[in-house]
Amino acid sequence: MIPPFSLVIFGATGDLTQKKLIPSLFKLFLDKKLPSEFVIIGFSRRPIAKEEFYILIQSVIKRKKSYNEVIWREFTKHVVYIQGEFENREAYGKIKEYLNKANTMLYLATPPKYYETILDNIAASGLAQKTQKGWTRILIEKPFGKDLQTAVMLDSKLDTLFKEEQIYRIDHYLGKETVQNIIAFRFANGIFDPVWNNNYLDHVQITLSEKEGVENRGAFYDGVGALRDVTQNHLMQLVAMIAMESPRSFSSQGVREARSKAISVVRCISEDEVSNNVVRGQYEGYKTEKNVSANSQTETFVALKLFVDTERFKRVPFYIRSGKGMKEDVVEISLVFKQVCHILFKEVGCPEEGNILTMRIQPNEGIRLIFIAKEPGHEMKLSAINMAFTYESEFKSKEVVDAYERVLEDAFMGDQMLFNRSDELVSSWRFITEILKGWEKGQSKLLIYPKGSAGPKEADDLIKRDRRKWV
Amino acid sequence: MIPPFSLVIFGATGDLTQKKLIPSLFKLFLDKKLPSEFVIIGFSRRPIAKEEFYILIQSVIKRKKSYNEVIWREFTKHVVYIQGEFENREAYGKIKEYLNKANTMLYLATPPKYYETILDNIAASGLAQKTQKGWTRILIEKPFGKDLQTAVMLDSKLDTLFKEEQIYRIDHYLGKETVQNIIAFRFANGIFDPVWNNNYLDHVQITLSEKEGVENRGAFYDGVGALRDVTQNHLMQLVAMIAMESPRSFSSQGVREARSKAISVVRCISEDEVSNNVVRGQYEGYKTEKNVSANSQTETFVALKLFVDTERFKRVPFYIRSGKGMKEDVVEISLVFKQVCHILFKEVGCPEEGNILTMRIQPNEGIRLIFIAKEPGHEMKLSAINMAFTYESEFKSKEVVDAYERVLEDAFMGDQMLFNRSDELVSSWRFITEILKGWEKGQSKLLIYPKGSAGPKEADDLIKRDRRKWV
Repeated sequence: MIPPFSLVIFGATGDLTQKKLIPSLFKLFLDKKLPSEFVIIGFSRRPIAKEEFYILIQSVIKRKKSYNEVIWREFTKHVVYIQGEFENREAYGKIKEYLNKANTMLYLATPPKYYETILDNIAASGLAQKTQKGWTRILIEKPFGKDLQTAVMLDSKLDTLFKEEQIYRIDHYLGKETVQNIIAFRFANGIFDPVWNNNYLDHVQITLSEKEGVENRGAFYDGVGALRDVTQNHLMQLVAMIAMESPRSFSSQGVREARSKAISVVRCISEDEVSNNVVRGQYEGYKTEKNVSANSQTETFVALKLFVDTERFKRVPFYIRSGKGMKEDVVEISLVFKQVCHILFKEVGCPEEGNILTMRIQPNEGIRLIFIAKEPGHEMKLSAINMAFTYESEFKSKEVVDAYERVLEDAFMGDQMLFNRSDELVSSWRFITEILKGWEKGQSKLLIYPKGSAGPKEADDLIKRDRRKWV
Repeated sequence: MIPPFSLVIFGATGDLTQKKLIPSLFKLFLDKKLPSEFVIIGFSRRPIAKEEFYILIQSVIKRKKSYNEVIWREFTKHVVYIQGEFENREAYGKIKEYLNKANTMLYLATPPKYYETILDNIAASGLAQKTQKGWTRILIEKPFGKDLQTAVMLDSKLDTLFKEEQIYRIDHYLGKETVQNIIAFRFANGIFDPVWNNNYLDHVQITLSEKEGVENRGAFYDGVGALRDVTQNHLMQLVAMIAMESPRSFSSQGVREARSKAISVVRCISEDEVSNNVVRGQYEGYKTEKNVSANSQTETFVALKLFVDTERFKRVPFYIRSGKGMKEDVVEISLVFKQVCHILFKEVGCPEEGNILTMRIQPNEGIRLIFIAKEPGHEMKLSAINMAFTYESEFKSKEVVDAYERVLEDAFMGDQMLFNRSDELVSSWRFITEILKGWEKGQSKLLIYPKGSAGPKEADDLIKRDRRKWV
């Protein structure tokens, strides 16, 4: 059970709070997973009354099927709102008045530029101190820094205030069912482990594509871009889940260790190799989006080729790409196996593609296996067919837990498995920062691509050059 | 294209001709796969006129959707009927009058007891001789003999009349799509080959179960039984398809060689080991079926455990069973992989079953893979789930070719791949005959099981004893 807690949300009037945090907390409340003693303290700059705050955070969940007015009113009894500037130290004192005697969870849900200020004021006002009876933990949203240097700086600051076991660096992708299922899939199925290596794997590809553009997040997104926003964290984590060796144990420590090790051996692309291995794009019309600079050089698309330097993945490239303003909403990982057209079938001909194992993270979370079968008929004609399973159809009765619900529950329970450890972030930023440096030196020209496309055609060339293609 | 031919069907008024041969020939005719010059000569003892014969062979196909009266009348212009006793040599002379100048196909679709007589008369009347222009081939239905000795005798007789390349020993199971697909599946998918051996396989099980009892086939079935009727041929062929090594080429010769080799190393169960490894059953009420002896000792069910002595399958048992009067109609092969509950999941617990790959031959031909996934939810709870593909749903537009259509087309085209070679039958009969000998000496008591059940409970014990179960 989740112990009694006070949760302080910095940035309580923001999108994340409305769309993810409050809905997840309310869901936990509905499911009777929250303790009887808890308080949620919303902290933000906006000068609104408590009732206005309730209306604000109610707007998203009110549209949900599970919404229940009576329970919602019950829930809001646990919610307070404090108005205050992040720079204003005195406002932090007000927070302390509402903290209960038990455990304190501090949630940084603000734009990253406020992190330092908030952390300073948390320290100065004594909020970071352990209470007598319980724990104090801090949850930090991505992006965690904007390059290696700033990430290390942020980490140092955290380090002076908290111990590693108090710090929960969120990558909500790790909270997704399918991402967690990768561990189960890889290590609980005896038949896949033998082929999970460079003897059988040709390459891996990971795609994270969104139809939407930046919409009303221009102020946040501009100057950040796809590389920092999703590649450094989500995509690198997915790479790690595929590439990592078996953890020593299914514990927070074991799994984080394995993940961290995998990221640490992602081979850096040296500055002058960036053009050859990284494609950088911006969708047409991005510069005219709200709160976006008219001559913005921010990328909304990135595709790159990387290697993970382990025995298992030697010479197995990872092609990863992410973009906004794409033709579809999809996040998936495909393991493309070598096409071993058996000598038997040389004459009858083999399908172009061999076996492909695809793990779809969203939407329609599931697993798909492409294999070769004989077409019905007199001739031995081979064709590639699909065998698929989706979580929804398989586990009808079981609700897929929302990633943020999982993130919050784990943090309350003190389980760090699905949170980034400091060294994971450092390794990941080291890799990303080399690319950023290359860009600064003029590598990878920014390519404009039409909205609703698959990105710049150079991203296709990146993989075609190796006689492969995006699946 | 199929060349011009004369097809002589011995036993033209029988079940097989009505239900399988004429429908398949008519389908080939509908599909315009038959040449303009062909004649089908029905030969049987029943004294009926040509028109009566047409009505008889029309009865089954008339109910089919594809039936077309006009085309049927066109088809019957190619069909003649000759009445004659199989023992009456002169009747065979009449056949010769109808043969066209091209190729001759002789089809033995009679009860096996007539084979010798018919073959003698074929020889004496010169029907076995090659025509000037074309080939002469003989198609023989199972059962091919009733033990090793009679099979060898029958083979010797054939050998004096025909060359091996003229002899088409039918096992229509080999003509089934899914059986052929086993070759494609095994050798065109790089990811399955690495686990197709005793490092990963725990055991193989094959089930051929029919709901029907003997119905109106008592006269044929009694004294034959499940071991001779389906085990010696169909089940042993399925064992071979799973156990065989990769053929050297996808040719008739290559595939038959590989199959034959696999059957030749099925380890014989010595007479005194039969009780321990073979379960013999008869469904309740069998003895009162039409044309069945009141104290019949014929088995309608058999389950047995065997080993294939290759490096690949060392210590991997095959559990095979077949029966009539069972609870369902199903033919399938399951490869059960070792449950390698990774040390990671020891604490959370593993599902009882591991990976299972099932190839369903009928009905709903397809492939099913059971693998382990994480159940949605906070806990790491593993459960076994299904990923499936069926031919019907995948190849909607493509009709699955009926096994007999395939058998006939291949024989007309001279492709022997899906027909038994002499040595396959000899190896298979050697194995089966040892069991028959054991039975004669009192091994494996005949066990009565209720109709609509899964056979005698001793068949469950056979596999349970090894801490396994039928899937």
